[in-house]
Amino acid sequence: MRVVDIGEIGRRVPGGLLDVREQVSSWQASVNRALDECLPDPSTPPARLHEAMRYSVLGSGKRVRPLLMFATARAVGLDESVVESAACAVELVHAYSLVHDDLPAMDDDDLRRGRPTCHVAYDEATAVLVGDALQSLAFQLLAHGRKLPHSAKVRIHLVRLLAEALGSRGMAGGQALDVDAEGKQLTLPQLETMHALKTGALIRCSVLMAAACAPTLDRELLSELAEFASCIGLAFQIRDDLLDVTGDPAVMGKAAGADERRGKATYPSTLGVQASQARLSQLHEQALEALVPFGARAEPLRGLANWLLARAS
Amino acid sequence: MRVVDIGEIGRRVPGGLLDVREQVSSWQASVNRALDECLPDPSTPPARLHEAMRYSVLGSGKRVRPLLMFATARAVGLDESVVESAACAVELVHAYSLVHDDLPAMDDDDLRRGRPTCHVAYDEATAVLVGDALQSLAFQLLAHGRKLPHSAKVRIHLVRLLAEALGSRGMAGGQALDVDAEGKQLTLPQLETMHALKTGALIRCSVLMAAACAPTLDRELLSELAEFASCIGLAFQIRDDLLDVTGDPAVMGKAAGADERRGKATYPSTLGVQASQARLSQLHEQALEALVPFGARAEPLRGLANWLLARAS
Repeated sequence: MRVVDIGEIGRRVPGGLLDVREQVSSWQASVNRALDECLPDPSTPPARLHEAMRYSVLGSGKRVRPLLMFATARAVGLDESVVESAACAVELVHAYSLVHDDLPAMDDDDLRRGRPTCHVAYDEATAVLVGDALQSLAFQLLAHGRKLPHSAKVRIHLVRLLAEALGSRGMAGGQALDVDAEGKQLTLPQLETMHALKTGALIRCSVLMAAACAPTLDRELLSELAEFASCIGLAFQIRDDLLDVTGDPAVMGKAAGADERRGKATYPSTLGVQASQARLSQLHEQALEALVPFGARAEPLRGLANWLLARAS
Repeated sequence: MRVVDIGEIGRRVPGGLLDVREQVSSWQASVNRALDECLPDPSTPPARLHEAMRYSVLGSGKRVRPLLMFATARAVGLDESVVESAACAVELVHAYSLVHDDLPAMDDDDLRRGRPTCHVAYDEATAVLVGDALQSLAFQLLAHGRKLPHSAKVRIHLVRLLAEALGSRGMAGGQALDVDAEGKQLTLPQLETMHALKTGALIRCSVLMAAACAPTLDRELLSELAEFASCIGLAFQIRDDLLDVTGDPAVMGKAAGADERRGKATYPSTLGVQASQARLSQLHEQALEALVPFGARAEPLRGLANWLLARAS
């Protein structure tokens, strides 16, 4: 299967009704505006913490997870504004995970998205608290964010999905397996489990949370979306591993080859580059397959999948 | 006002209908059993993380916040079993806050409840992840813990109360102010704000969460409970500050004098020991005053308040 770049996505849309490139920019602007609004005012105490929270979230992130949520909303027949608060919640926890992962005791990274990481720009204690407070803020948004369905039943379901995706059998668990695996050779199933939790759980959760905002969605369609989300989540991490080997640091905003220097278990280190690329293509194809029943409504989701899995950074 | 010790509380109850000392032990046993059940199985991966989560929660904690929740449940006419999952959620986040506060970048404590702190017993990366995963687990319990009212409306209200109490305008914010204040002299209002957030927010939240499980509770009574909870939360921290100056390390399971060595802003360092004790007594009295409208139903809550504010550790 051929992987397309984002420039091509706009042209793939029939009838020019939807230019995915423009759509992505417009959605990124929406989510950035919404994040800016939901983050605490840096002029109120604790000012330094508030400033560091904003610094860690309002960078140049691609907003992959909110984009997936907006596109999923479209696929299930919702206006994307309905999932906006949930999309912010997911982006906040993604930002928290980056801040904690970058800590000296974890990956000890100095650079993130081309800027000093939170503990470098501020200090370690602040970085720990930024992560903690961003996680709480995400749940605050699910509890009373204005741009969400008002039904308490839907909201509590969103809390459940997010909390499970973050916990010890989700993102935090994947990170723990990653820490344990440093310098070890993993089997392929061990590696897939680690990746499915570390990155996959939150990406899968993004899609499922957007789908949960349409509580009357057909069960079959929900299960196709879950399949799509699982494939994309794993494929996204394989792509990330490959970029660390083959990517351009200037484009990525962080150093390449970091995984190898740290003895991290990755797809290329376990399977080799070529087999990793083949697995990525297979997952990509499987993801698109799952979208067939959605027809044209899933066009933004297809465009995003193609963009994510072809991305250079 | 005279402060009683726990031995005396049992005798204060009229007619011997309720022995608070026994009640406390029985409630502590209940919450320990419930925590054991809700924590992940250490024989399943990520095993080390699961083991460290259990280590950090299942120590010899007093379970102050769950006890307050059980006693509040009684005061509002509920059986304490109704708030059990919420009580576990609060205790999990309390444990997470201790694990993160003890980190080298924060308070750098080696000893907690008489045992090595999490990052000493395991490692720093694991301690960061333990805190993160405990916070998520707390929200999982609110979303689908069995021992809670089933109403989604009540549950989402509990999520909101907890998330706000933990965020940058709650516990994490108080901790940030505490970090910023090291080596500085604070004014009394600054100190009260810091304490109200750092310790007070979660204690206040415990009482309000238990009250929220009785959604038909009279508004006046709810506001009296909020007043009680605010007083107890601040008084509890003053007592903690005083113990650091006057307490017995053998009883407390941690070193005394740590605040002074670190140049921490505390009540004794700002007001002196005697004036701090006077403020504690005033808050204690104010707390008991707020319970008057509850009559005999608040007897366990009174007993706990007396116990907490007289405690030696």
